[in-house]
Amino acid sequence: MEIRSFTIQTLERLPYYLHYMESRETEDVSSRDLANALGLNEVQVRKDLAAVSSKAGRPRRGFERKPLIRDIREALGFGRMDEAVIVGVGHLGTALINYKGFRELGLRIVAGFDLQVEDEIWVNETPVFSSDRLKNLIPRLNVKMAILTVNSENAQAVCDELVAAGIRAIWNFSQVMLNVPDNVIVRNENMAASLAVLSEYLSTGNNK
Amino acid sequence: MEIRSFTIQTLERLPYYLHYMESRETEDVSSRDLANALGLNEVQVRKDLAAVSSKAGRPRRGFERKPLIRDIREALGFGRMDEAVIVGVGHLGTALINYKGFRELGLRIVAGFDLQVEDEIWVNETPVFSSDRLKNLIPRLNVKMAILTVNSENAQAVCDELVAAGIRAIWNFSQVMLNVPDNVIVRNENMAASLAVLSEYLSTGNNK
Repeated sequence: MEIRSFTIQTLERLPYYLHYMESRETEDVSSRDLANALGLNEVQVRKDLAAVSSKAGRPRRGFERKPLIRDIREALGFGRMDEAVIVGVGHLGTALINYKGFRELGLRIVAGFDLQVEDEIWVNETPVFSSDRLKNLIPRLNVKMAILTVNSENAQAVCDELVAAGIRAIWNFSQVMLNVPDNVIVRNENMAASLAVLSEYLSTGNNK
Repeated sequence: MEIRSFTIQTLERLPYYLHYMESRETEDVSSRDLANALGLNEVQVRKDLAAVSSKAGRPRRGFERKPLIRDIREALGFGRMDEAVIVGVGHLGTALINYKGFRELGLRIVAGFDLQVEDEIWVNETPVFSSDRLKNLIPRLNVKMAILTVNSENAQAVCDELVAAGIRAIWNFSQVMLNVPDNVIVRNENMAASLAVLSEYLSTGNNK
């Protein structure tokens, strides 16, 4: 299989293209349709589609919708199933374990870890272990991705343990900017910043 | 009160500055300290702090830590309390209602709406109503912010109802790029994109 890679910006737009196309019934879809429907720049859309599509778009008709859907799903990794552990099984961690959408996106949460757990407990079909066992179990599970939903105070220490245990991709829901080695990627879900942006807009009308 | 406004990029970095400074005990903190600790560009940090701080940084010593903490908290709107409704009270919606961190960030979720609810139910101390009542209740509650956690299929239709009911800021957890009028702001939490970025990195090592 040819491995292609995309910019983060392209990857961020792909789920929106996919949803738009899956909601249509036409045979073809053009960059212009997508750009108009999603409020994006048409040149940008054309570049994104050229990067993911295995076929060229045809003048005036655009892309065949179904093959393009397949290509985008492949680019987004929906075909491959990733496994992850989740560390910090409070309200948010539990919600993420229970979130059915992840399966569809190709993510399986194989285990959880939490400081408060003494022995093994189960959240639906996912086992949750004491955080003490993280060092040992992650290499045995051979998992490379971790979802971090611990408190801010513990985030960097837990992150260090995860990296030592072989984790190479961290989805960070804590409010800490993590320090990691160069070969580890961190993706921040920064709820405080999102909220600040919305709140700022409501209080000042500033949308820049 | 002087109303200042910040770029989204600055607002996104502020929670990290805040967390770093709250974890220190020194009297002063410099742009360089922050830049080094967080792996950011020093010039960028200096600009951000100049935009939020009510006092100038002093050569060689930097900023007084405590006043700067106050200024950042104010810039992030921690002083003001925003109210929001949440639409779609499934696993994710319930987790957000239960998420204690929001209070600290100045957000109070005053009501939920869900298609599946016939009469009023309660999730802890938050009332959840049938979605039919959204049109009526939102103007009466005088709430301007909504958290959208409905399925993709319903997202645009619900968004339209929210806008018609007077909502001006939408925190969008669905996977749909919403169409809204110019006077409404949308902040996307795109979990599919985040996951794609992490998964892509694990499969190709691409981190760009």
